[in-house]
Amino acid sequence: MINAGIVGASGYTGGELMRLLLNHPKVNIEAATSRRLSGEAVSDTHKHLRGFSDLKFEDLGPEEIKERCDVVFVAVPHGTAMNIVPELIDSDVKVIDLSADYRLKTDIFEEVYGIEHADPRDAVFGLVELHPEIKDQSFIANPGCYPTGATLSAAPLAAAGLLKMAIFDSKSGITGAGINPTPASHYPNMAENVQAYKLTTHRHRAEIFQELNRLDSKLTDVSFTPHVIPSIRGILTTAHLFVNDSLSVEDVRDIYTDFYKDKPFVRVLDDIPSLGAVRGSNFCDIGFEVDANNGRIVVISAIDNLVKGASGQAIQNMNVMCGLDEITGIWTPATSP
Amino acid sequence: MINAGIVGASGYTGGELMRLLLNHPKVNIEAATSRRLSGEAVSDTHKHLRGFSDLKFEDLGPEEIKERCDVVFVAVPHGTAMNIVPELIDSDVKVIDLSADYRLKTDIFEEVYGIEHADPRDAVFGLVELHPEIKDQSFIANPGCYPTGATLSAAPLAAAGLLKMAIFDSKSGITGAGINPTPASHYPNMAENVQAYKLTTHRHRAEIFQELNRLDSKLTDVSFTPHVIPSIRGILTTAHLFVNDSLSVEDVRDIYTDFYKDKPFVRVLDDIPSLGAVRGSNFCDIGFEVDANNGRIVVISAIDNLVKGASGQAIQNMNVMCGLDEITGIWTPATSP
Amino acid sequence: MINAGIVGASGYTGGELMRLLLNHPKVNIEAATSRRLSGEAVSDTHKHLRGFSDLKFEDLGPEEIKERCDVVFVAVPHGTAMNIVPELIDSDVKVIDLSADYRLKTDIFEEVYGIEHADPRDAVFGLVELHPEIKDQSFIANPGCYPTGATLSAAPLAAAGLLKMAIFDSKSGITGAGINPTPASHYPNMAENVQAYKLTTHRHRAEIFQELNRLDSKLTDVSFTPHVIPSIRGILTTAHLFVNDSLSVEDVRDIYTDFYKDKPFVRVLDDIPSLGAVRGSNFCDIGFEVDANNGRIVVISAIDNLVKGASGQAIQNMNVMCGLDEITGIWTPATSP
Amino acid sequence: MINAGIVGASGYTGGELMRLLLNHPKVNIEAATSRRLSGEAVSDTHKHLRGFSDLKFEDLGPEEIKERCDVVFVAVPHGTAMNIVPELIDSDVKVIDLSADYRLKTDIFEEVYGIEHADPRDAVFGLVELHPEIKDQSFIANPGCYPTGATLSAAPLAAAGLLKMAIFDSKSGITGAGINPTPASHYPNMAENVQAYKLTTHRHRAEIFQELNRLDSKLTDVSFTPHVIPSIRGILTTAHLFVNDSLSVEDVRDIYTDFYKDKPFVRVLDDIPSLGAVRGSNFCDIGFEVDANNGRIVVISAIDNLVKGASGQAIQNMNVMCGLDEITGIWTPATSP
Repeated sequence: MINAGIVGASGYTGGELMRLLLNHPKVNIEAATSRRLSGEAVSDTHKHLRGFSDLKFEDLGPEEIKERCDVVFVAVPHGTAMNIVPELIDSDVKVIDLSADYRLKTDIFEEVYGIEHADPRDAVFGLVELHPEIKDQSFIANPGCYPTGATLSAAPLAAAGLLKMAIFDSKSGITGAGINPTPASHYPNMAENVQAYKLTTHRHRAEIFQELNRLDSKLTDVSFTPHVIPSIRGILTTAHLFVNDSLSVEDVRDIYTDFYKDKPFVRVLDDIPSLGAVRGSNFCDIGFEVDANNGRIVVISAIDNLVKGASGQAIQNMNVMCGLDEITGIWTPATSP
Repeated sequence: MINAGIVGASGYTGGELMRLLLNHPKVNIEAATSRRLSGEAVSDTHKHLRGFSDLKFEDLGPEEIKERCDVVFVAVPHGTAMNIVPELIDSDVKVIDLSADYRLKTDIFEEVYGIEHADPRDAVFGLVELHPEIKDQSFIANPGCYPTGATLSAAPLAAAGLLKMAIFDSKSGITGAGINPTPASHYPNMAENVQAYKLTTHRHRAEIFQELNRLDSKLTDVSFTPHVIPSIRGILTTAHLFVNDSLSVEDVRDIYTDFYKDKPFVRVLDDIPSLGAVRGSNFCDIGFEVDANNGRIVVISAIDNLVKGASGQAIQNMNVMCGLDEITGIWTPATSP
Repeated sequence: MINAGIVGASGYTGGELMRLLLNHPKVNIEAATSRRLSGEAVSDTHKHLRGFSDLKFEDLGPEEIKERCDVVFVAVPHGTAMNIVPELIDSDVKVIDLSADYRLKTDIFEEVYGIEHADPRDAVFGLVELHPEIKDQSFIANPGCYPTGATLSAAPLAAAGLLKMAIFDSKSGITGAGINPTPASHYPNMAENVQAYKLTTHRHRAEIFQELNRLDSKLTDVSFTPHVIPSIRGILTTAHLFVNDSLSVEDVRDIYTDFYKDKPFVRVLDDIPSLGAVRGSNFCDIGFEVDANNGRIVVISAIDNLVKGASGQAIQNMNVMCGLDEITGIWTPATSP
Repeated sequence: MINAGIVGASGYTGGELMRLLLNHPKVNIEAATSRRLSGEAVSDTHKHLRGFSDLKFEDLGPEEIKERCDVVFVAVPHGTAMNIVPELIDSDVKVIDLSADYRLKTDIFEEVYGIEHADPRDAVFGLVELHPEIKDQSFIANPGCYPTGATLSAAPLAAAGLLKMAIFDSKSGITGAGINPTPASHYPNMAENVQAYKLTTHRHRAEIFQELNRLDSKLTDVSFTPHVIPSIRGILTTAHLFVNDSLSVEDVRDIYTDFYKDKPFVRVLDDIPSLGAVRGSNFCDIGFEVDANNGRIVVISAIDNLVKGASGQAIQNMNVMCGLDEITGIWTPATSP
């Protein structure tokens, strides 16, 4: 059994890691840390876990974590992870960081986040479908929720050198903003609404750009506009993709099915994805249409932001890093309707 | 492996049976029937199952079902099941009927549903927590969704002979009304609303009454008023229970925890249950307060109507009927938040 | 024109007072106070009022308010109003207090709210349908949201001396908890949920009891259990009413239609009320069924908690106090669907 | 008083016309037609109107409508209006058609809708902010819901000759799909979801294109992708606008505020619009950001699809056609929250 630790386990990604790991046949949840809740039962915070785990939150230093755990998921805010990861990483423990701290090249990170990086090291970007080299890594930067759905929606065209410009218009459930109440998560503000925000300046654009540009260095025109919708979970991304060639529906279908042919968690559909069909699961569903007017290809991707967009993908990374089948423990259909 | 068949698999309970059975280590889904959809892929209707099953809907007669299946779940409307069950039941196949047809004693059924019963046989009521005799049965009438949550909220007091009068005020998610669109499920009618209906005449009252009266034949005053809330899943029942003795919080807690002490799917809580903590799971969470004014005990129970209120409970019944551990394949935490 | 002031105008009831008063043909909104937001435009907080009002929040003392205003709405939290009202009330200004401070007799208030009353004076309870004496008052305690819907659902039976026991099971929209984000208003906690709380101890029970007991002093058994539903606005109350006589549907209908015959804002329906049909309006819709099993009468009332449950009712009170037609400025159909 | 008739009054736009007209000081609702519901009370269908109107649906021929009405709103489906309008229009009655039949030039209509036009006449497109010539018309084609929000979001840049390419990504509430239940409006399908549809082929694209191209004939690249969100009302449009000049925030602000300076129902904001601030009202709120990366301007517009997107705009047209102040009877703030 793999002994897993979760650093910063009181939030949504921590809770979701535990929900998923409890069903993982090869993992024992060894430790869940929270300075603030140290000593309290994990299931007092994550009430759906009552009956499943007697675990208590602990306030652990890196030495004890490394001693007890084989794999550590770091689920703390950006800016904090960079102070924790270095003390964990220099060891034989495998580390998967769910924060933003190691997703971007250091100089880009510092520019985008406006803070100096305390630990300027490179990490592999943990989007399993694009990074086969994950299997040799002991440290992975788990992708952001928006970049997961956006990048997967456009990667096949970028990899084929066909993508000229990409505009990602994403719609996210409200758990993307975290477990703490704010005006933006206040029910009367969000119900019966859809709230656009950071129309041109969201930090996740840099991740999407980095990944697509890596697939095609000629691609420079990448835009991203996020919205919050009245849904607990899920991200639906509408990718308006302009290509530099005339592509038929069959062309596009071939490109996508071929690109994702050995990727069990990406389903290329004949119809338009919905959030219900991925809710609680690690899938990314993709559908598309070709615009007869201007060659625009509209690709829709649907993920669960807490699973494929965070905790499920982290476990998918763990599986690959540990030599397990990629789908181990997370091959579960969505809870639908 | 147990070969399972689902008769009438195109609706929500059919889809949920498949979602759950796909994760059951001892079950193979052998057949899913639908006359209307015969020949179509199951995953064209239940899109969240794409990638999990190549099953096609079939239009099968009882002989073929019995030949291929060890267990049959009947998920057709009330009034229809009574014409299918008799042809299945006279065999060594185990049958679990999810319709209302066999839940009530025949005379009560005919009175409540206003139709003549085509197959007036007795069946054990498949509320596992109350019916240990399920383990010897080959035919079970799976309880209704409302009766599951309502009966479990009051059973300990009824069994103790303490319950004088019970008023169940239940709030159900909209999947309770089925997969077909109606004005009652039309989004603009149900969002931002809570809709009471059949204030005094809902048929499920008879099931609740039958079960509680079985525990205490002196109990006659049982009322039930259902509501639909803007939620996909879940039933929260507020049980206003009047008792014929003065009970302290500790008394009530002892009665409930003792009654449910070996029942893994009932969690007696110190706080008030929420639908989120049971969503997608087979749990029934129970909490309560004692009214200092008049001895009323207000018990809240929360279930997922499609799981503990239907398909999960059917599998729980199957587990017991087949000699498996009651929790096999359905010991999964809720998808929360 | 009546010059109206709103003390504590930054919350939902303040915003709703302004929305409604802007359409009132006899009222000028003279002042809106907020210590915290003093100097800021009212429409920066209440964004739907942009273009309608150049008003700025002010931090005003009682003297200035009295000088500038003919009517003052006090929309501050309970415990605060009692320190503001006395300085306003001793004048020719009309005062309508929307807090809980003056709704209950002083001794009951102190017991229920656990604080000493700084200003133990009596006030008329501003439920216009029950208190014709409002027209002679210069100070009114505007009812709570839950008590409005609950009391109106049972008052006709209480007034007829027929009510033996009342159990109010109420379902409220989330604006009832106010404008400030809390875990209870956090979208992921409340969507797809219905949350029961204070099952037996909610303070509004005392108001309901006081009003019904005033109509029938023999009535003592009144219970109240509140819930929050995923809706922005609205309270649906399910009143389980036990009567000491056998009443037919026609009897009950006669009692209700007669009782409310000159009350324009109460609509006694032939069907079951919905929140949509009262949304944004000052109506209280009432429907019912008689339980053939036990003589229980189930009455459903539907109101908009911010209108008939707060600000609309306050204006209705103002109209009566000022000698205007009760419906002036608030005779508007619901925004439905 | 203007006597108004509504042809096809049983749907959402018919109900909304009546809700709004009931508050219009210059209008008497003279007739509401519905063949199917003829003889039934209007308030049996539109329950929020109970107490406001004794009107019954009638099945009227064009002669009788013309005789009784000064203004006729035609609220029947596209393809039907073209058979009704000609019989109404040849008279001194003013006609406002809310269907799609007269919004496009005939040849474009026939191409987009795939049907032959029975009445190939030109009509002025009733977007008041862009068509001052409405004041001289007796027949107006009221714009579609999506085209209203999309066109207003981009018109100032198009009119300035600055718009090179426009991609409209719109998110609509579910009432946009009408009053009849369908799988697309089934609560369990739409809650917790956002559903993209007709990614490249929605008919409303032609209206948007026609209007923007009219403002700048060089503009040819206009895309439109609609989505349905879990909201009853509202359309939020995210307009990704590419311009052929480098524009600062101040430039854009000047262009928009200047363009809309005498348009009372368009509010150009400093922040990002929300649906709550326009709910139930006739406003179109507009906000924007300039993308520092690529000169893209992201403009957000928010409308209520049933008001500014349909019935409110129809009344705005009526006001102008009848020589009334444009805002008469519809100058009402949103019902918010």
